[in-house]
Amino acid sequence: MAHAVPAAHTPGPRLAALRAERPLVQAITNYVSMDVAANVLLALGASPAMVHAKEEAAEFAHICGALVVNIGTLSAPWVEAMHLAAAAAQAARIPWALDPVGVGATAFRNQTSLALLAHRPTLIRGNASEIIALARLSGAAQGGEQARGGGPKGVDSADSSAAAIEAAKALARATGAVVAATGEFDVVTDGERLARIHGGHELMTRVTALGCALSGVCAAFLAGRRDPFEATAAALGFYKLAGARAAAPAQGPGSFRVAFLDMLAALEPSDEIDLVIET
Amino acid sequence: MAHAVPAAHTPGPRLAALRAERPLVQAITNYVSMDVAANVLLALGASPAMVHAKEEAAEFAHICGALVVNIGTLSAPWVEAMHLAAAAAQAARIPWALDPVGVGATAFRNQTSLALLAHRPTLIRGNASEIIALARLSGAAQGGEQARGGGPKGVDSADSSAAAIEAAKALARATGAVVAATGEFDVVTDGERLARIHGGHELMTRVTALGCALSGVCAAFLAGRRDPFEATAAALGFYKLAGARAAAPAQGPGSFRVAFLDMLAALEPSDEIDLVIET
Amino acid sequence: MAHAVPAAHTPGPRLAALRAERPLVQAITNYVSMDVAANVLLALGASPAMVHAKEEAAEFAHICGALVVNIGTLSAPWVEAMHLAAAAAQAARIPWALDPVGVGATAFRNQTSLALLAHRPTLIRGNASEIIALARLSGAAQGGEQARGGGPKGVDSADSSAAAIEAAKALARATGAVVAATGEFDVVTDGERLARIHGGHELMTRVTALGCALSGVCAAFLAGRRDPFEATAAALGFYKLAGARAAAPAQGPGSFRVAFLDMLAALEPSDEIDLVIET
Repeated sequence: MAHAVPAAHTPGPRLAALRAERPLVQAITNYVSMDVAANVLLALGASPAMVHAKEEAAEFAHICGALVVNIGTLSAPWVEAMHLAAAAAQAARIPWALDPVGVGATAFRNQTSLALLAHRPTLIRGNASEIIALARLSGAAQGGEQARGGGPKGVDSADSSAAAIEAAKALARATGAVVAATGEFDVVTDGERLARIHGGHELMTRVTALGCALSGVCAAFLAGRRDPFEATAAALGFYKLAGARAAAPAQGPGSFRVAFLDMLAALEPSDEIDLVIET
Repeated sequence: MAHAVPAAHTPGPRLAALRAERPLVQAITNYVSMDVAANVLLALGASPAMVHAKEEAAEFAHICGALVVNIGTLSAPWVEAMHLAAAAAQAARIPWALDPVGVGATAFRNQTSLALLAHRPTLIRGNASEIIALARLSGAAQGGEQARGGGPKGVDSADSSAAAIEAAKALARATGAVVAATGEFDVVTDGERLARIHGGHELMTRVTALGCALSGVCAAFLAGRRDPFEATAAALGFYKLAGARAAAPAQGPGSFRVAFLDMLAALEPSDEIDLVIET
Repeated sequence: MAHAVPAAHTPGPRLAALRAERPLVQAITNYVSMDVAANVLLALGASPAMVHAKEEAAEFAHICGALVVNIGTLSAPWVEAMHLAAAAAQAARIPWALDPVGVGATAFRNQTSLALLAHRPTLIRGNASEIIALARLSGAAQGGEQARGGGPKGVDSADSSAAAIEAAKALARATGAVVAATGEFDVVTDGERLARIHGGHELMTRVTALGCALSGVCAAFLAGRRDPFEATAAALGFYKLAGARAAAPAQGPGSFRVAFLDMLAALEPSDEIDLVIET
């Protein structure tokens, strides 16, 4: 049964807390997203730190409020650091988010994504195609089909969010993580509850790495070990809202990105987001 | 004999086809250009994917529509991946573009550029100094002079496009590649035909990596294995046009970059570009 | 005794010289800052080149006008290249700037920062917390306290510029470098002279890597081997001025970054900066 978000799920206090606490978010993320992901977190009110060397990734994970691991531009030394940091986060009970960029496109991404699941991510966020691919690879989703072998779209989604709902639920149940599949609308689930978040704008797909940056935003909302389902839903809702607002002054993808950062900084806890939770 | 571009070279349909097909462009590019190169391709209507690990670069090259290899920020593991991806593209007859950033400045760049020529790039795009340096290094251009040893300008051109015409023709004949030397005006040649493209704006030199991003745009136009000389000329022409248009609203290099992305997205197949082909 | 900047310290001619000479600045910098650091240098009028492979870092250092080494995203191969480039710069008497990002946060950063001091940087620029941490690590500053172990803020400063003055002086005396601690206001010292630079805007802390980019700007002003104390003070003053001017048209951090680049390009040698030198 779908219903509007009840008072208990009002996300405003989560944004206010984030602004007050300014969580340190460690990001092991891809080269393409470094600039925009750091700027998105700063605009929102968090404190990003890109730390990915194997010599320090685990040490740093102990002092951060949350960790995000993004496999967008993999290499062997980084995979090692991802494991060290994720293991440290798990051991210290620091929330961490996995963004399995391009899983399904190459064997290296498939192997890495699956191996990282062993460290029990708090959240898995991807586009619909990635969530479907990871659910199949992990054995969480049925189908008899083989794991998708990539397809022509590389790191962009070829599937709709609606098509990913069952895979997301299965992946959540199999891993214990909250799972978010984002796209034209977003879905987030802990295997039982499901939230749908509407809003945003098509121009969000014309700016690189806004999905990667969103994973960092989710991590920032996870800091403080709040209920990860509700924290993620709040993160997605505020992100969609900033995207919708940024479209008004934008003349194209260049000015949209600029306005989007401005709108993230201008978000207020009293803003209403378009969030529907089904129980 | 120079003449205006005839009907057969009208580039509009090439842009329309790119928008319809949305080619997946694999980019092994430098760290400085990652953000802007991906955003330029997204704004134009292509689908970029930065994939450079040796574990997956060749596998991914098989599913992309075109590949661009840019040596701007070299390291040994990346050079290995460049060879793997270029060899895979050559074997699969997928067009690929080489951007020899800074060739002539260090021995490492010289060696890498020359070695990559063995995989028969479809296109070589550089600034005038880079094209002259690579032509000399490859033995394509005469002169008795040694290959340039760098000079004080690093990765920026110290030569004019006009000065690079003979080197570009010689390099094209020696390698079988289309060769483009871009700058105040652009020249592109397949060793026989020569096109000159005018337009653009001086502010394009005040934004980092717009040359690197242009190599990706050329690769996007090469996708579909269309005539690479005409495809490259179309790419250069549309890029110059967007640059000229972006100068009007710009207050400086910051706002120019924003407007340039907007103008790339706003390009129309019916737009006229300033292209002169000499036969 | 504090007094307004005398005629001998007028920084305008330094900006005019930079624009005329367009120094080649080699940057070994972190991934997050690559885009904005290169764009800041181009906007100002310098010529940036990001060259960090061990195979070419030292060779390239010989042809640059100045070098900046930034440890923001460390890894072992990069540390090797940092040493090679800094040693080459020292040997060739080319000025070089060290930006010890996040020193104090991890052992890897502490060890690397200390080891790089052996190559006698011309300038050390950091935020207040980094300067305090490095002064303690190097034994320059007293206190009996242990080196700071990081704290919750990662790469952002937890200390004020005023609190870093004594540490900056001690570090300058111990290393022979000019030392700058930047923040709400900036201080720069050669161990004897001290300059304070006011201006800027709070939005400068909401855009990633503007501190890293500032280290590159300082390096550009160091090119030509001018008095490094005065060159650094000029760099900091013009940077603050561009920041203050950019705040007027900005709607938030996104548009601030755009305007900041525009304002750097629009700086004039006749502009007055807010610089006070104490002797």
